[in-house]
Amino acid sequence: MRKPKVSVFKIGGGIIDHAPDLQEFLRQFSQISGLKILVHGGGKGASQMLEKLGLTPQLVNGRRITDAATLDIVSMFYAGKTNKQIVAALQHIGINALGLSGADGNVIQAVKRPVRDIDYGFVGDLSEASINAPLIQGLLELGLTPVFCPINHDGQGQLLNTNADTIAASVAKALSTNYEVELHFCFEKNGVLRDVNDEQSVISKITPADYAELKRRGSIAAGMLPKLENAFDALNYGVEKVIIEHALHLSGPLKTELCRS
Amino acid sequence: MRKPKVSVFKIGGGIIDHAPDLQEFLRQFSQISGLKILVHGGGKGASQMLEKLGLTPQLVNGRRITDAATLDIVSMFYAGKTNKQIVAALQHIGINALGLSGADGNVIQAVKRPVRDIDYGFVGDLSEASINAPLIQGLLELGLTPVFCPINHDGQGQLLNTNADTIAASVAKALSTNYEVELHFCFEKNGVLRDVNDEQSVISKITPADYAELKRRGSIAAGMLPKLENAFDALNYGVEKVIIEHALHLSGPLKTELCRS
Repeated sequence: MRKPKVSVFKIGGGIIDHAPDLQEFLRQFSQISGLKILVHGGGKGASQMLEKLGLTPQLVNGRRITDAATLDIVSMFYAGKTNKQIVAALQHIGINALGLSGADGNVIQAVKRPVRDIDYGFVGDLSEASINAPLIQGLLELGLTPVFCPINHDGQGQLLNTNADTIAASVAKALSTNYEVELHFCFEKNGVLRDVNDEQSVISKITPADYAELKRRGSIAAGMLPKLENAFDALNYGVEKVIIEHALHLSGPLKTELCRS
Repeated sequence: MRKPKVSVFKIGGGIIDHAPDLQEFLRQFSQISGLKILVHGGGKGASQMLEKLGLTPQLVNGRRITDAATLDIVSMFYAGKTNKQIVAALQHIGINALGLSGADGNVIQAVKRPVRDIDYGFVGDLSEASINAPLIQGLLELGLTPVFCPINHDGQGQLLNTNADTIAASVAKALSTNYEVELHFCFEKNGVLRDVNDEQSVISKITPADYAELKRRGSIAAGMLPKLENAFDALNYGVEKVIIEHALHLSGPLKTELCRS
């Protein structure tokens, strides 16, 4: 029997920070047929709120250091504001969305990142065992569209901030046992670009061999590297298709598809 | 066939504001056998945060006026902080909790309160049709314990702040068609007191006739009146039992049970 199809979409802060773009993405997302899941990242709102409250956001290599006070604010912002606004907006346009942190139904259980050179604070990493695929399947079977925010828990009562790309890839991998999964990373560019200044220079297909060559030549933007690592890892694990595309042109011709070979 | 039993517990700000009390309540709640649901109110944290951000909480007759900026903060606080901390704490003690705002799965759809003498702002009222009982039943059947925060939506993309007593009573009523429902209002007193200064003066049973008499004599604390109205309304609608009790003595002997006659 053919597995049912499910599409996992991830959007980041660049879209979330601009309300009209977010609405337009959600409109396009609502048009996608079949089962679907949305994973959203953070955005600048939480940092602005930290500043208003007199807390200075700490970043090391572009990653936020999440102390207890910061965790409080980012949990509120991501789980209480961004997530609920997205869910309410999707409900309005006919999508039966249900917002989730990892704590809800123990749907994602993370592990606090071990301290090595840097103490990232209350940041969670995911493993193969982190995702509660039967619950996600149960929610999909109730006709719901799960919407994940980047806040998880450790099973010991502690919330943990987690990278949204990692959540999307982990959910996609975990569902690939019972579903034909398409994983979509949506952002503010048309895909992986040959020339970061030319939006038309989208590379339409990338194999692992292409990726190695592009990396060797140094022609991939630094921010794109972890996304591609996550993506190939998901493909190798059994995810059917990974697409990197513009969040506002989901049905457009320009996009990058990653291929197993 | 006998209907399955479900217990709906409501806790308010007095318990939520004191972390050790909240933990103790959650521990006792986790010991309750059978299907259960938790509804939590707000608490002082959101007001403190509004003040830190330079926004002055506005109260009229003890009810918050919820303007757009206030709604943003209370949504974050109730849905993103209080709700997620309760869910994570329950997961830690073995209860498979799942946090919900009304927008999630369209589980509660409220109506913005019409402006009469006072414009309460983004405050939602509930009607018989507000509660999505089939979804709650679906979640219970997945083995989940729903945890409701006092934020709902209007189905048009707008979040609305809603009184938690009203949510608890409405959920209890809606479930009474398919379940034998016990509704528990838990707070910082042992029940409805004959003498508000004597914790031992708990009235163990109140019928509608008793209630009318107590009201006539003016011997019920003002804050208790809407709780009792909600409670008798729920009983009349088909809820099996309504109990008013101390949040930290769920299995204690002192409590008030409301009776249909």
